[in-house]
Amino acid sequence: MAIIVQKFGGSSVADAAKVENVANRVVETYREGNSVVVVVSAQGDTTDDLIEKAHEINKNPSKREMDMLLSSGEQISIALLAMAIEKIGVPVISLTGWQAGFATNSNAGNARINKINTERIMAELDQKKIVIVAGFQGLDKYDNITTLGRGGSDTSAVAIAAAIRADKCEIYTDVDGVYTADPRIAPNAVKLDEITYDEMLDLASLGANVLHNRSVEMAKKYGVRLEVKSSFKKVDGTIVKEAVSVEKMLIRGVARDNDVARIAVIGLEDKPGIAFKVFSLLSKKGINVDIILQSIGRENKKDISFTVTKNHMQEALELLEAEKDSLGYEEITHREDISKVSIVGVGMVNNPGVAATMFEALYDAGINIHMISTSETKISVLINVQNAEKAVQAIHDKFLI
Amino acid sequence: MAIIVQKFGGSSVADAAKVENVANRVVETYREGNSVVVVVSAQGDTTDDLIEKAHEINKNPSKREMDMLLSSGEQISIALLAMAIEKIGVPVISLTGWQAGFATNSNAGNARINKINTERIMAELDQKKIVIVAGFQGLDKYDNITTLGRGGSDTSAVAIAAAIRADKCEIYTDVDGVYTADPRIAPNAVKLDEITYDEMLDLASLGANVLHNRSVEMAKKYGVRLEVKSSFKKVDGTIVKEAVSVEKMLIRGVARDNDVARIAVIGLEDKPGIAFKVFSLLSKKGINVDIILQSIGRENKKDISFTVTKNHMQEALELLEAEKDSLGYEEITHREDISKVSIVGVGMVNNPGVAATMFEALYDAGINIHMISTSETKISVLINVQNAEKAVQAIHDKFLI
Repeated sequence: MAIIVQKFGGSSVADAAKVENVANRVVETYREGNSVVVVVSAQGDTTDDLIEKAHEINKNPSKREMDMLLSSGEQISIALLAMAIEKIGVPVISLTGWQAGFATNSNAGNARINKINTERIMAELDQKKIVIVAGFQGLDKYDNITTLGRGGSDTSAVAIAAAIRADKCEIYTDVDGVYTADPRIAPNAVKLDEITYDEMLDLASLGANVLHNRSVEMAKKYGVRLEVKSSFKKVDGTIVKEAVSVEKMLIRGVARDNDVARIAVIGLEDKPGIAFKVFSLLSKKGINVDIILQSIGRENKKDISFTVTKNHMQEALELLEAEKDSLGYEEITHREDISKVSIVGVGMVNNPGVAATMFEALYDAGINIHMISTSETKISVLINVQNAEKAVQAIHDKFLI
Repeated sequence: MAIIVQKFGGSSVADAAKVENVANRVVETYREGNSVVVVVSAQGDTTDDLIEKAHEINKNPSKREMDMLLSSGEQISIALLAMAIEKIGVPVISLTGWQAGFATNSNAGNARINKINTERIMAELDQKKIVIVAGFQGLDKYDNITTLGRGGSDTSAVAIAAAIRADKCEIYTDVDGVYTADPRIAPNAVKLDEITYDEMLDLASLGANVLHNRSVEMAKKYGVRLEVKSSFKKVDGTIVKEAVSVEKMLIRGVARDNDVARIAVIGLEDKPGIAFKVFSLLSKKGINVDIILQSIGRENKKDISFTVTKNHMQEALELLEAEKDSLGYEEITHREDISKVSIVGVGMVNNPGVAATMFEALYDAGINIHMISTSETKISVLINVQNAEKAVQAIHDKFLI
């Protein structure tokens, strides 16, 4: 008998039939003799619908009230899932984030979990109940409801698994595991049986959309065994753990991220500290810069290009415009029709041929590269967005079949 | 400067424009220098939509999970109203039932308020915030979310008003006060400036649909001054209080209630205790019986007719069928196409002519009376439902113009 945490995303509980499907999966695990804690997200488009409702009234509501609003979404889905399990005839109870003991800091909209008081969860498990917990939410020390931001439900599930020392944390999604590339783009993509936390982190941050980074980081920190599985198909998924025992593939996956905007600051004076000035301006406002390219131009001027996520582009442009005089540049350009394609793999750090093979694949496919960024475990290129899918397929097939 | 509790029902916050309208009303009261606590219900049809969602999954969910589900409705409306007030630029905070300190018993679906811990509400008021509280909900001693049942938001508002010793509790609805009859039925209906708690209780229980009995009972118990007002029009409403100073009208209002079913148990043996047996059977199952008529028939048999609310009819019939042998009746009949029309007024207790005048009005209108029930402050008649509106109008105009 094991303690198992299962997490189901919004698309897995989008309607009554899907809720019943999840109920059956959960009860099956329970009837195998396990203690089961289930973490669920808000149904389907509920969160988007609630955001729209809010924006009809106030384009810029406080984060505190936004959290009050959005946390109702999971409250609905936990109650419905509990009702579906009641119908099967198994003891069950649903708990909101605060009832489940999630104590967070007060950073509304993007709160961090400080600790989980597991008393209530454990008491309900001791009574042989399936425990359904609302993901994505907690309570700060002033008794305000908070939400955990993007990927919050994954993080909730891993945090509970760590706190109650679960044997594993199963993350159910609409794909059946982690693939070497998005199978909709690269038909030859292969499902991985196992992957390390670090590889998963690189893939997640590169837009693989399976697990959010915060949850993988937490799983790594507390040694929580993660399994990514399909909500709909009953097949083995992908296990995420510290070390993988399979034969070393050179690279583990190809990922694409279209949420990229490139900003170029042109004609900066080529003097020390000017790059620092540009980037400290952005970092003070919490804008993360990804790929950076610096080039020397004509007449002792230089250009700095960098990428940000699309939702930060406008703010970054405004910050730079406001400091035009102190930065002393000639003009700023920006574009959003670009994509970042990356390869990930712990095996490639000692193999200088990997980058060359990647560039060859792109050259063969006739794809122009705008910017390049490399680290120990990944190589990313910035290309035109209309080439992104072709690039993923070309690189994937070059390396992985 | 006064402390004012304002309660807005679901139809008053049904969409973005209506939420903004409510926000303006609330802010106006705040800007006059008052401390304002606002109690809101779930938006428009939200509660019905949630119930439908639940029933798609489980026709008979536990009340505990139903409360978890339904309480999300008010959580949405309090957040949206807070956002609308933020937009106006006034400090505001929304609180769920449990955040506002509502401690209830564990009777899920129909919980009673045990006490309100007002610490948080008072602290927020001290910070000059408008406090928005989710009506209809609380928390039991095991930290389960509960709901208060029908009329719950009115009750929440009155309970807060009592607990924080508010100067008044304004109940905003889609009518602009308490009328001598439903103005849609009796065009000559007159709005009452004042009415006593007892008269209001009789009108409410007779289907006037303005205030729920529980809230009026609580207001009476704690001496909370109630004002029934329009959410949409800025006119004086009706004040509900202990004693009214206006000239004594003989009757205060005419009410109609179509939620009535009549059951007749025919051919019972005319022996002692048989009526008791019938009604104890029903009361054990929580079925309230209203008007009762007992008549002696042929051959030492008697018939007992009584009314119940429509949702209890089927259960009542089944209970009686199951006890056919022990009760020893011949047959049971039932009908639902009936209506109860009542006149209410403390002034009529000492005036025997009131009943006669009422019956005369019905006779003049050609309306047949099936059953009659009288008490100190009201007279009710059961008539065919198709005559109900005509009856209200005839009685109203006979007495009140």
